[in-house]
Amino acid sequence: MKTFTSLMLTLVLAFLGSDSSCAYSPREDARIIKELKRQEALNHAKIARELVHRASWAALGSISTNKAVENYPMVNIISIDDSDANGNSTGKVHFLLTDLDFTGPDWQKDNKVTFMFSDEQTLRCKDAGQDPMEPTCARAMISGQVIKMDPNGTNYQTALNAFTKRHPAAVHWLAAHTFYLCALDIKNIYVLDFYGGPHQVSASDYYAIKL
Amino acid sequence: MKTFTSLMLTLVLAFLGSDSSCAYSPREDARIIKELKRQEALNHAKIARELVHRASWAALGSISTNKAVENYPMVNIISIDDSDANGNSTGKVHFLLTDLDFTGPDWQKDNKVTFMFSDEQTLRCKDAGQDPMEPTCARAMISGQVIKMDPNGTNYQTALNAFTKRHPAAVHWLAAHTFYLCALDIKNIYVLDFYGGPHQVSASDYYAIKL
Repeated sequence: MKTFTSLMLTLVLAFLGSDSSCAYSPREDARIIKELKRQEALNHAKIARELVHRASWAALGSISTNKAVENYPMVNIISIDDSDANGNSTGKVHFLLTDLDFTGPDWQKDNKVTFMFSDEQTLRCKDAGQDPMEPTCARAMISGQVIKMDPNGTNYQTALNAFTKRHPAAVHWLAAHTFYLCALDIKNIYVLDFYGGPHQVSASDYYAIKL
Repeated sequence: MKTFTSLMLTLVLAFLGSDSSCAYSPREDARIIKELKRQEALNHAKIARELVHRASWAALGSISTNKAVENYPMVNIISIDDSDANGNSTGKVHFLLTDLDFTGPDWQKDNKVTFMFSDEQTLRCKDAGQDPMEPTCARAMISGQVIKMDPNGTNYQTALNAFTKRHPAAVHWLAAHTFYLCALDIKNIYVLDFYGGPHQVSASDYYAIKL
């Protein structure tokens, strides 16, 4: 689908570029290009959503407050889940943090984080004979702010139930009373899924996808 | 081995703590404790070395120079290799960067990076029924500076050959003339491999390990 849409867009653009006397009006041309670009954007959004839903964890970057590496980027492995009560994808990234780990103190000092997801996390690239750094090994970098969820909020219990269903070990973490449920307020998404550089995807396009 | 060493250290400390009239002299006690702690440190260093050698890639954190997420931590997926000419582990992290990707411009602006390695990259935790965020799912965060390797340097060709042997796709990246071979100058290593928090490992203990 991805390759097909890219090909369509390339062909249409090449066609419009080489022959201005084509059957479409300039306004119609502009509409088609806009729609194809929108489809292309949604396609990247879909890839991001699929990566997030398939992943049980993300490589989470924060600005370190740890004395040994202060102001370095720290990267942690953080279990995540984006499921609703029925296990379907919502795109909303939920995770448990503790201030006893690296990420907890970091986000409270400087609330800028990036979650990295890659198809190689589930060995899809390796199994397809692709190098993990090859652009065709799809990845998404989702940046934003950590939000500590309110235990009395409407989404809290559903999100927590879905999380512990996917991560049964989390029941023990929660029993230690130092872990708190968080959500990500998405500021920016970059998706790399083919040659030609990363694509920027808006949070609204990302959430608009139905998987 | 890890659990055994931990257990030994705990038992010896408990024994020394509970009975000061034991057969060992205070000086001997101190020597034993020091040696056990050294073994413990080397054990964490060994886990870091094993993680690095098993991994084909790392989640690499940098401080972003990208306009959309400037000064955010960026996390990228970067192929790595630490092999010598015979495929044996050296611990030296080699990788290819391009300034057309996220990491390239970032390290040149602010040369602080962290490589994160996890046993979950190769699904070892999943296969053992462990959650990827559980402390027993071993991980290493290796922070330091990117060094662009000198093509005329003594180690360059050996490192490049080992890299392309492990990552055949890299031959095409190099043909594009935008990729350059890099090494990591290690400043700090954190290893988390069990309950009780992360362990700091020095670069010299890390490199001293023979796998």
